[in-house]
Formats: sequence, structure tokens, C-alpha cells
Amino acid sequence: MEHTIIFQPSGRRGQVPEGTTILEASRRLGVEIEAPCGEQMVCGKCRVKVMEGNFPKEGITSSMSHLSPQDEKELKVLERKESEENVRLACVTKVYGDILIFVPEGSRTGKQIVSKAARKIKVKLKPAVRKYYVELPEPNLDDPLGDFERLEEALAKDHGLKKLTIDYRALQKLPDVARQSDWKMTATVWMDREVIRVEPGKVETNIGLAVDIGSTTCASYLTDLNTGEVLATESMMNPQVRYGDDVMSRITYCMLNENTGLKELQGTIIEGLNTMVANAAKKAGFTTEDISEMTVVGNTAQHHLLLGINPEFMGVAPFTPALHASTDIKAERFGINILPGGNVHVLPIEAGFVGADNVGCLLADEPQKRKEITLLIDIGTNGELILGNKDKLLSCSCATGPALEGAQIEFGMRAAPGAIERIKIDEKTLEPTYRVIGNENWSDGKTNMKAKGICGSAIIDGIAEMFRAGILKKNGNVDMEVKSDRIRMGEKGVAEYVLAWKHETSIDHDIVINQKDVRAIQLAKGALYSGCVIMMRKLGVKSFDRLAIAGAFGSHIDKVAAMLIGMYPDCPLDKVEYVGNAAGDGARIALLNIDKRKEANEVARRVEYVELALEEDFNDRFGEAMQFPHMVDEFPHLKDILPPVK
Amino acid sequence: MEHTIIFQPSGRRGQVPEGTTILEASRRLGVEIEAPCGEQMVCGKCRVKVMEGNFPKEGITSSMSHLSPQDEKELKVLERKESEENVRLACVTKVYGDILIFVPEGSRTGKQIVSKAARKIKVKLKPAVRKYYVELPEPNLDDPLGDFERLEEALAKDHGLKKLTIDYRALQKLPDVARQSDWKMTATVWMDREVIRVEPGKVETNIGLAVDIGSTTCASYLTDLNTGEVLATESMMNPQVRYGDDVMSRITYCMLNENTGLKELQGTIIEGLNTMVANAAKKAGFTTEDISEMTVVGNTAQHHLLLGINPEFMGVAPFTPALHASTDIKAERFGINILPGGNVHVLPIEAGFVGADNVGCLLADEPQKRKEITLLIDIGTNGELILGNKDKLLSCSCATGPALEGAQIEFGMRAAPGAIERIKIDEKTLEPTYRVIGNENWSDGKTNMKAKGICGSAIIDGIAEMFRAGILKKNGNVDMEVKSDRIRMGEKGVAEYVLAWKHETSIDHDIVINQKDVRAIQLAKGALYSGCVIMMRKLGVKSFDRLAIAGAFGSHIDKVAAMLIGMYPDCPLDKVEYVGNAAGDGARIALLNIDKRKEANEVARRVEYVELALEEDFNDRFGEAMQFPHMVDEFPHLKDILPPVK
Repeated sequence: MEHTIIFQPSGRRGQVPEGTTILEASRRLGVEIEAPCGEQMVCGKCRVKVMEGNFPKEGITSSMSHLSPQDEKELKVLERKESEENVRLACVTKVYGDILIFVPEGSRTGKQIVSKAARKIKVKLKPAVRKYYVELPEPNLDDPLGDFERLEEALAKDHGLKKLTIDYRALQKLPDVARQSDWKMTATVWMDREVIRVEPGKVETNIGLAVDIGSTTCASYLTDLNTGEVLATESMMNPQVRYGDDVMSRITYCMLNENTGLKELQGTIIEGLNTMVANAAKKAGFTTEDISEMTVVGNTAQHHLLLGINPEFMGVAPFTPALHASTDIKAERFGINILPGGNVHVLPIEAGFVGADNVGCLLADEPQKRKEITLLIDIGTNGELILGNKDKLLSCSCATGPALEGAQIEFGMRAAPGAIERIKIDEKTLEPTYRVIGNENWSDGKTNMKAKGICGSAIIDGIAEMFRAGILKKNGNVDMEVKSDRIRMGEKGVAEYVLAWKHETSIDHDIVINQKDVRAIQLAKGALYSGCVIMMRKLGVKSFDRLAIAGAFGSHIDKVAAMLIGMYPDCPLDKVEYVGNAAGDGARIALLNIDKRKEANEVARRVEYVELALEEDFNDRFGEAMQFPHMVDEFPHLKDILPPVK
Repeated sequence: MEHTIIFQPSGRRGQVPEGTTILEASRRLGVEIEAPCGEQMVCGKCRVKVMEGNFPKEGITSSMSHLSPQDEKELKVLERKESEENVRLACVTKVYGDILIFVPEGSRTGKQIVSKAARKIKVKLKPAVRKYYVELPEPNLDDPLGDFERLEEALAKDHGLKKLTIDYRALQKLPDVARQSDWKMTATVWMDREVIRVEPGKVETNIGLAVDIGSTTCASYLTDLNTGEVLATESMMNPQVRYGDDVMSRITYCMLNENTGLKELQGTIIEGLNTMVANAAKKAGFTTEDISEMTVVGNTAQHHLLLGINPEFMGVAPFTPALHASTDIKAERFGINILPGGNVHVLPIEAGFVGADNVGCLLADEPQKRKEITLLIDIGTNGELILGNKDKLLSCSCATGPALEGAQIEFGMRAAPGAIERIKIDEKTLEPTYRVIGNENWSDGKTNMKAKGICGSAIIDGIAEMFRAGILKKNGNVDMEVKSDRIRMGEKGVAEYVLAWKHETSIDHDIVINQKDVRAIQLAKGALYSGCVIMMRKLGVKSFDRLAIAGAFGSHIDKVAAMLIGMYPDCPLDKVEYVGNAAGDGARIALLNIDKRKEANEVARRVEYVELALEEDFNDRFGEAMQFPHMVDEFPHLKDILPPVK
């Protein structure tokens, strides 16, 4: 007897025989779970969470009884609280029914190699947090001034700082630090107005963390505030994916669970951020307390969820957020584990779903300072567009969904070893060849490539190639009349194209791209394309001078493939620029220069927000854009590589 | 068989037969414990805490095994955490060994009638927190400004407020409040610069809480910030008494328990304050969230303990505190349950143990604005003195101990019904007559007055009378040669004077004042008197123009009796003024007027601190002052009532 098992957040699913352990199942389905102790129930690293509730869409009811019971040995490894929250060890827990499993970030293996690595950014160093060394006169009976007043005088005398206050936590440490260090100490001062830390002796280390909260992926950059250098980069899945893949489902969750939903979602992202904070600090050899400030970008929904603000109203007309401007909140007040008196600086947001991440892109790419017209596409679960130049800037948000990042794709997986990353299809034989991460060679259809799945960028590759080779029709349907044993009707009657035969994989299963995958990509690219079209009309332009593709995933997308499937309007390919994780770069820029924060607030207010859904012709434009290059005329730059008209 | 039982914080102790319940024992010893359900184990109001550890001074070892075990019924009433923390129900727990019991504030009956009631104060209303009503234009697609920016514009337009920020918690509520109230709302603004609350509709209620943290007693005044009116007064024992009666023992506790002591002490006072906050709000019909600000005064040790700052260094030369100036801390940051975004304004401190409470006295009594020289004595567990006028002010702190407040006195108790509050002794017959709180009549030695103990002010009365009647010698010894059946050698060989015979009491025991009580009062008054003498020498004056007695207990002390025992130097009796709880009044003044906060910071820095212990002749002066009026010449104003020289 077999049961269905689904793994979140990857969305991978499949059938496994009754009695299979969750760990075994994960391996068969290409889901990565840590298990360094070799199933000895010692390390506890393979913790997974059994998600409760019904999943009517899939016809699955999950409950604890669909798993083998916990024995004493497992209970020893797990904390009581964990057991209560349905956490299990994947290595020993056996499947006895349909089940939905959430693999927490900490239990996932496979380094994310989608480049969230930091690009070099040029910015003058003018951080909000600075360190000042002072030597204080020791108190005596004739000079019994309080410790802080003593520090205040020294900071005024030696560094010209006036009207200082001191954070509660720093004050608590001051008496001991002063006396331990013989009154020689380093004060960490925020905005030249508040002492937020005191350390004994002379300390120059001054670090901050720039964070980009994406709907699916979060990235953080531990940054040296003295040099601008990135000391460590950490990324993780946004743990809120367990509440839904896109922001709309998370907002819905908040609305349906009025008293607890928002708190849960806020708690979840804060917990995730704290893991990232701890990992980044550890990686670079610091304590979390060494992180004196954090800057955060994210779309408006993520912004509200992070701050614990009801996101309901920014999702409906007239799309007003609770706060447009940037804000500083003491880390301790909402449980972010950096320096307790340190601040979290949340960048300003624009409107609708166009949030601080987009403002980050503006800081990084600066279309507002250019004469030429830029079209900036920030590709994520929520795609954001900017169109304009120094005279005028428009922005909009497109609900692309997570498909472009490889989620909700039948064989989608993270860009980790075993993931297919490049695909070519011979338009004559319709035979594919592909490359797998961790292997230099292209496949030949015979060799076992140990493929496990397809990463985000390769999905676009694959679909573009399928279209170019005539496997897909203009409307996106798999053309079943095309003769190839790779084109077939799959299980559940879904047409599919076999990319890798079972014997080429490590998951003992053919890897396919199916009709559903194509539809998901069509929806995503249609959203982006129609957004571009409407924005261009709004700005009154027929073309743009440069196309900037932002987003960590964006950087890995093949620009030809993306244009071929119609992700964005035609333009000379040499005008297409990958600008990396511009949102994250913006967070770093704001971390390093306070003038840029001011600039961010100004530009955020200048951008005009276009709510696509309110445009009269939105449905028409979207419908058209769902098609594969619907008008060949619109893609003059692709003429040579477009498929033969069938 | 009998066992010794001691009740904290009253310090009452006695022998009870084995098998007596704690509740019964408390009644016999005049300790008040709530028990409204009649020992049915239903209400749980008689919770007491069994304190662990050895008490070598008393030769008592307390442990759980000295009590009857818990049964199921008791366990049902108590929470598991309470049981673990040795909380028991007094009504059913029986004594099977020597034991020390702490009666928490919530379990004590008997209204504290020592007036912590608020005096009328004159102060211009200029509170830090104000309420502003605004009607916001509803957002639409052409005006999609964020909620806060919308509020900001309205507050600027209607009330001239500029450069506002908004507190994190207020921001969280803003979207819902705006839409619930049709964009008509009231913003609570702190210092005209931060929105700390938003409420639907027009709200005028604007309240704050002024708190005086004494070593033994804490008082709080719920105050209407629009009118200055006191809406409710709450007082409680400082729950830190379980760590020691005076601040030095609490500081020692912190030092001996390096990692946990300070946190425990801070947690204890915060928990206590929260009880007071909740009671005050409830009494006046508000929620705790309605309290927008809190001002706090207390001595330097209490100041540091409240803020979680190591108090070690301010207790040793050169007596430097961590911070002299006032400070504002968000209530939420240290767990004070008022409006989460509201501030706790802690008044500035002077030096040594002369803290914010003394600054409060300065705000209330304003000796710094007078031409005449004031001697201000703030009587508490830590007595604080101010001497001076507009030209110069000296301050010092005297470790009086809790005896003047009736603690650590054999039959001392709170000023509650049953407490002896006034005493007279006939100098011929040596027979006393006394009055009991709750009874208009004076005692006659026969009637059952249902006396339970002696309250603080009556102790001073009693000792002054004993001295006047010749029962006490100048050195404070009970004169055993005086013939009276009331003068006798008590248990354990301690001389005593019987104030009330067993049949006059409700505790089935003679009530006495014994030699130990006299010693405790001698130490306290000696500390105050020698402090006055040294301060006068320092200021270069031989007399003062007015004597202000501050402190809630101080207000109930008979000024003649107090001068008679030598608590302060001689002066015309009509120059003695009771100024009530001036420290608490100062907290109220600061709550109502922000200019006064500035004034407080200025005057706190002007006061010159005198560290008595560093004065060469301190021991001599203190030794002399321990005597009863050591030089009759020093008390010309008492000539008529001084005892005959024996």
C-alpha cells in the first residue's frame, strides 16, 4: 500500500510505500533533510514538523495517526514543547497514511547556490552607528558625577557629541564596564544621539546586518560598518511559507485567524530572522550582540507582517499602508536578537505591494537619477516593476507566484546539487540535453546524472526550449500531435515532457515538465508582461532604454529564454542588465549611509503607484500576455530564434 | 509542643502549638491574612509563601517538612508553579516545626490607613502626555497616503504638531482604529513628538500614575492629567522586603548572587508595581492601558534595582550612581504594564542613597526657593535629610532601619484596625492608657480593646512616654528599679513594659514594648539626629527656620514625642510642619508638569551630598545621639515636658 507525502516548503510530493521513514521518502523525492548521525537518533538534526489540517485540494487528510508513534528514544531527543507541536525525527518516523511535512530551514541540506552573494556596491560610508573610544576621569569624593554623566562629558570633550541619551540596556552595563576597564571604554552611539552599548577598552569592530525579506527567500548581509565589506551572507526560506506561498494567502490567514494569525506570522518571521542573525554572526566569528543595527527591506505585506501590523487594508483599494515612511524600532521591543538597544531600521514603502524592497532597488540601481528610461523588474514571488527616469517613476506589483523561483513546479527544487540548471532541446529530434548542478557535463540521455529536480531558472529554460522546439503551442498547450516518446499523457491525465529518464536520476523517477508547470509559468510571465505593457502606456512610452533584472533568482534567468517566453517586452539583448539582489543591496546601502535613508524616504514618496487590477484593460492585457510570444512583431530581437510557425 | 513562626514582611513572631494552621497562627499574632471563604479552600486568597533557608540569628531552620503536606484539594486551588515556589494556603497548612512565612500583599487584609492619601498640590498643568482629537480625510485612489502620514498631517494642521514619530505598538493599532472610527480618532502624544496611542473617536480621559518606591512601602497615585486630580491611591509593601528590610541587605543580596540576584530584585519590584498599577486602574474604573505615563521616585538603591543596574558602586565611596539625570524608558521594555508605548519617567537622583525620592521632596517642598533655612526630614527605612535654602542645599542619608515604621518591633504592626496608635503613661502610677485604631475610646486596663499590636507612630509615642515617666534611663535602659508590675523581665531575659494585658487584646498575649524595641528606635533616631547635627555644622548654622517632616509615616508621628526622644534637634514646635509624602507629591508634580522635570534635574545637581560615614566625628555624634535627650540644654522647647532628673 502506498501513501502520498508532500514536503513543504519545496512543494515536492509523491507516493511512498507504507512504512517508509520520512527521511527515506525525502530522499526519493529529492527533498533535502540533514541526517549526519546516520539515523542513530543522536543529532536530532532531521527534525521535521507534521502539519495538521485538511488539504482538500489534494484530497489528503493529515493527522498524527498517519505516522508511527513516538518511542522513548525519540522523545529523549525532542523537547516536550516540540512533541506537542508535532515535531518528529524524520529518520525514525514511519509513514502510515497521507501526510504533509514541513522541513524547517535548520533541517535542510544543500547550500543555496542561487547567488544571494553580495555584489560590490559603491557608497560613501556614513553609518548610523559609530564607535567612540574614551578615557574617563575616575570618580572621587570631590567629583562623584554619575557614570553616564562622566561618559557624556568625555564624549562631548573628545568627540563633540552633544545631548546624548543612553539606552536602558547599555546603562545597565555601564557601571561594571567602567570599573572593569579602568574607565577606558568604547561607546557605540546611534545617530550621534544615543549610547546603545558600552564595551571595555578600545573596540573598533562595528557591524550591522542588512536584511531582505522576500516572500519565499530571505537574505542577510553581515556588513562591516567601518569598511562596507560584507563579512558573511546568509539566506533562508521565509518560514512564513508554511502559511501560504504568496503574500495574499498569508494576509488571508491573518484575516481568518483574527486573534492569533498576525502574531503567529510575525513570530514566525522573527524566529527565522533570529536564526539568520545567529548563523551570520557565528560564520563571521561575532556574537549576535556585536550587531549594532539591522536594516530591513521587504514588500509591503512582509513589512506589515514583520511589524505586526494588520496587512488587510493595504491589499484592497485604495491600498493604503499603515505607514509609508521608514521607521526605527529597538530590536529588543520585537524580539530581534541583535544588540538589545540596537535599532531595526525598516525602509520606507511605496504603496500597494510595492514595498521597501523596491525602495531598496531604487537606492541600488538609481533609475531616478538617470536620464534614460529604465524598466526594472524585481523577480520574486511578488514581482515588482519600476518604469521611468529622473523625471517620473511608476511602480507596480505583479502577483507572479512562486513558480519563477521553482516552487509549485512538479519537480521544482532549490538550486542545490542535483538540480537541473540548464536545458536545451534539439528542435529536430526533440531530445533534451541538460546540465546538473555539481556536474560539468551535459547529459546524453544514458548516463546517470543523479538529477533530483529542476531549479527555478531551468524551468524557464526548459519551457522556452519546449516552445522553441514546437512542443508547446502559442497558447501554452503541450502539442500532443508532435511525435516523441518524451511527450506523453502523465499520471492523472496531465500532459508532460520527459526531461530525464528514471535511470538518469537519483530519485528513481522520470523528471518531467508538465502542463501544470507550464501554466504556472504562463501565469507568472503573463503577470509581469502585462504589467510592463500597462506601465509603458501609463508613462506614454513605446520602449525603454535599459532593462534591469533584479532579484537573486532573476540573476540566474537566461535573458534569451526569458524574452522568448515573453516575460518582458522586446528590447536589444545588450540592454538587458542583471543587477542582482538590488533590494538587498539597497538594504546594505541604507545600512552604510544615513543620507541614503533620507533619499529613500524622498524617492519612495515620488514613485507613482499603478494598481494594475484597477486598469480597465488589465484582464485583456493579462490574457494576451499569458500566450507565448503573442505577436512575433513585438519581439524583433528574437526573430532568429523564434520557433517555426506551425 | 510549640514552634516558632515568623511572618514577613511585618516581622511578627511567636510560638504556636504544633498542628496550628498558619491562618490561626497569623490571627494569634495579629498578622492579617485574607480568608473570605471561611477556610473552604475555594477562594485561594490566603496564599502565603514559605520562605526557605536558615535564619541563624533566630536559631530557626525552616523547610517544607515543617508543614503538613499538600493534599489534592489544596493542589487544585494552587497553580503548579506556585506549589513549586512553596506557596501554600494558610487556612489548611499546619505547623509542624519552626517556620518563616511571607504574606504577599494580595493576601493581607486591613486597609493601610497610614496616610498615603494624596495631599493637594499646586502645580500648573503641563503634562508630557496629551490627547489630540483629529478627523482624517479618508484615503482614496488619488490620495493613497499611509495611515500614519495621514494622521501626521491632521495633527500638524489642527494642532501644530511637527516632526512626529509613532510608537511601534500604536502603529500596530492604527489601521484598525482608523477604519473602525470612520477616521475620527484621538491620538495620545508624548512630549508633542511621539504618538503613543490611537483610540477611536473623541477621548478626553488622560491619566498617569505617580509612584513612590520606598524601601518598605510603595505608594502610587493615579492622576488625571487634565485636572491634576488624584483618581485613586494605592499602596503596598515593597515586595523586595523578602530580600532584606533595608537597601544594604538587598544590595548585598545582589552581590552574593551575581548572576541572578539583580534580576530577581528587579523582577520582584516590577511585579509589585504591576499589581499596584492593576489595582489603581481597577479602582478608578480604567484599564491599565489607559495609563499613558508613569513617574517614579525612590532612593538611589531602589532606582538602580528598578532599572536593573548593579547597585554595588553607589554604596561605596565615592558613591557614584550609574546615572544622575532623569531617564525615560518605554514601559514595555521592562515589563511595566501600563500603555506599552508609554514611558516610565524616572526622576533624577542626587548621590549616595539620596535619590529621586529626595528630589521629589525638593519639588514638593521647594526649600531651594526659600530664603529661610529648612531642615527636611524624610522618614523612611532610609531617612533622608535636606538642610539649606535658596543659596545652598545639603543632603544626606541615614540608615534608620524600618523600626520607625513599626517593623522589627516585637509587637509592631501596620496601622490597621487593632493597632495601638496613641499611648500615654501616667508618670505617677506608670499606668498606660492607649487608643486602638477602630475604637474611639481610650483604654482603662480592664476593657478588652481587641488590641493586636502597635503601629509605627505609637512606638515613638510609647517610648517617649516611657522616657518621660522615668521607665527608661537616658541611655535607653529600662530602669528595673522602678516599681511597677508592668515592668518586668520578659522571656529570653529581655526587659519589657506591659502596655496591654492579655485580656485587653485579641491575640491572647500581653502586648509589650521591650528593651530590643527601644534599642531599635534609639538606633533610628540616633542616625537621624546625628545626621542633622553634622549637616548643620557643614552648613555653618546653629539652628534652622522650619522643620519639614516628610514621609507617610512621618505624618503620623507626634512631633512632641519625636522631639522628646531626640529624633531631631530642638526647635519651636510651631515651626514643625508635616509635609506628607513629599517624595510621592514630587512624583505627581513631575507627572503633571514637564518644566518641573527640568527643574528636578537642575536642583538634583545643585544639592551637595554629605556622606555621613566619612565624617571624622560621625561615630561620636552617633553615639551621643543614641542617648535620650543627651543635653537638656539642647531642647529648650521641651523644658516643661522633660522628665524629672533621677
